Amino acid sequence: MPDASPNGSADGRVVVIGAGPAGLEAARLAGDLGAQVTLVEKNESPGGMPIQANYAALTHGFRSAEEAMGEMVTAVVDHPNIDLRTSSEITAMSGSAPEFSLTLTSGDKSEEIVAGAVIVATGFRHFDPGRETQQYGYYEFPDVITLADAEGMLKENNFVRPSNGEIPERVAFIQCVGSRDRQIGNEFCSKVCCGISSKQAIEIRQQVPDARVFIFYIDMRMYGYWENDIYWPAQEEHKVNYVKGIVTEVLAKGDKLVIRGEDTTMGRPMEISMDIVVLAVGMEPSEGTRAMAEILGIGTNKYGFIEQDHNSLDTVATSVPGIFVVGAARGPADLDDSMATAGAAAAKAVAFVSSGVAV
Amino acid sequence: MPDASPNGSADGRVVVIGAGPAGLEAARLAGDLGAQVTLVEKNESPGGMPIQANYAALTHGFRSAEEAMGEMVTAVVDHPNIDLRTSSEITAMSGSAPEFSLTLTSGDKSEEIVAGAVIVATGFRHFDPGRETQQYGYYEFPDVITLADAEGMLKENNFVRPSNGEIPERVAFIQCVGSRDRQIGNEFCSKVCCGISSKQAIEIRQQVPDARVFIFYIDMRMYGYWENDIYWPAQEEHKVNYVKGIVTEVLAKGDKLVIRGEDTTMGRPMEISMDIVVLAVGMEPSEGTRAMAEILGIGTNKYGFIEQDHNSLDTVATSVPGIFVVGAARGPADLDDSMATAGAAAAKAVAFVSSGVAV
Repeated sequence: MPDASPNGSADGRVVVIGAGPAGLEAARLAGDLGAQVTLVEKNESPGGMPIQANYAALTHGFRSAEEAMGEMVTAVVDHPNIDLRTSSEITAMSGSAPEFSLTLTSGDKSEEIVAGAVIVATGFRHFDPGRETQQYGYYEFPDVITLADAEGMLKENNFVRPSNGEIPERVAFIQCVGSRDRQIGNEFCSKVCCGISSKQAIEIRQQVPDARVFIFYIDMRMYGYWENDIYWPAQEEHKVNYVKGIVTEVLAKGDKLVIRGEDTTMGRPMEISMDIVVLAVGMEPSEGTRAMAEILGIGTNKYGFIEQDHNSLDTVATSVPGIFVVGAARGPADLDDSMATAGAAAAKAVAFVSSGVAV
Repeated sequence: MPDASPNGSADGRVVVIGAGPAGLEAARLAGDLGAQVTLVEKNESPGGMPIQANYAALTHGFRSAEEAMGEMVTAVVDHPNIDLRTSSEITAMSGSAPEFSLTLTSGDKSEEIVAGAVIVATGFRHFDPGRETQQYGYYEFPDVITLADAEGMLKENNFVRPSNGEIPERVAFIQCVGSRDRQIGNEFCSKVCCGISSKQAIEIRQQVPDARVFIFYIDMRMYGYWENDIYWPAQEEHKVNYVKGIVTEVLAKGDKLVIRGEDTTMGRPMEISMDIVVLAVGMEPSEGTRAMAEILGIGTNKYGFIEQDHNSLDTVATSVPGIFVVGAARGPADLDDSMATAGAAAAKAVAFVSSGVAV
């Protein structure tokens, strides 16, 4: 194995697990810092959730997800220090820093990789809205869809009622599906759903100008610049209707959907007819995140996300020295969070393999 | 000048401007990656806003701000690759990458420093609630204070009415003072004030158990784990009262304050007597951020924060190659944001001085 050290004193390779936005960025920067990197992706191609789930535009500047991720993938594929291994998984680990021994499995072949540091970038999965206490009929009514389903239709510029292919006249977003919800067990806020719903609402109004779009929310969490980049234009330029209200159920009435709940601002019950209902599903740890936590022996919080030490002000350390975590494997994250934590982990992993001590 | 390169091919020092949380972290990591670093701080001592403004506990795990920042300062002071220059400012720059020439001024002495990359970590200032359209009487009533004033009292375990030194019976927080406000010109959300107010509300309830505490808000933005780490315990364990309502003015009535506004959930006007009113002031670019943008010739947004390129998915690049920006100089940021962007910029700056090209 080639020497991975940028200053000649170390003997460690950096293994990055997961080739979504955070993993691609971590791998590229570790490579730019002179480390030899193995980037492991279990899917056939890199790009992570924005590609797997057919995202249309990113909330980040409304840029094409395919184009933005394509650039990141190209930078990694062309990188002389990065060995990208698709259709591959880490299936076992032994040893500890500064010499982790990882088993990389591709199909029926396995090999050992020795690494000085590991970066976990295994991301999230969308909450399944058919689960448990959810009363929104996701598996019952074809016109009840999720944010991820809506992305696919918006990307194809074909936002229609799945039940009959017709252009919708009225579309409702329901926020906090599977987030801020103690019954489900997901008490956390998923952080990005308000922004993504508002972005999609703008796209719907652009693609289907006659449709009326409503967003039913508890708190509209458009932190930082999302406030003026997305939230205000959604209301003022694109005439999206925000209603502070809780939707308790979705019913069928003829070929329409009816949403029932309480408009908390007006203080009265509401019952409104809709053509499409979009469930703003939150984030949960991906299967890969759960599997890697177990294989690598790193601590998780009660939700299954990889635990950070809140006392240390270290945003990417795990419970095991030499193993770092980035992006949504840490918990709810937007793209800025994924990029920034990826950069921080690249710096720490490369410094770690150079020095042999946690930094 | 010593060679700053971790792989022997570059000739650049990394200059970090500002020794708050983000600047300390960026300097330490760049040093750990083998770069020679000059860390410039205009105040007499490092630590940034948490130290200057006497923060009590951080929202981040309720850890003592003094202790957490002390550890970061020690790591930098003890670092063999970092030259910390306090009571110093960058007063001019010429040249461009890979050779920036910076004028470092300390008192009446100036010197030139040649740098291969620059990291701007000049942070924010608190919004001045006496300014312009604000009707809350900050400069008129001693018992109207800001989040920063409250931190100082909580740190001393002496949360009393400034007017008479008495223990308060009723305390109100008013959210979004100087944020989400088009009249003021600050349309953005300052991102951290909801969390800090809620943290302070808990601390007040702990230090002054008989006080009733109210938080008046538009949207309660407790994203990610703040939802369950701070927001729910504030309500359930510490009995903080959250009221969705807009406070339009604060008046004096005898030796009490009266807040007037609208309770938007109950849909009725409110007029409530209080002993202390805490204004949850937002973030604006610091004077140092404005000055550095001008001296370094880097682009800013309309608010004066240093502009990021929303298309590039690069969270720390500025308009000038080789100059990076971290923490709240970019816009509203929490401590996780500051730590993560600092790490990303350290990686990019060191890779940049090694290669001479933007990464």
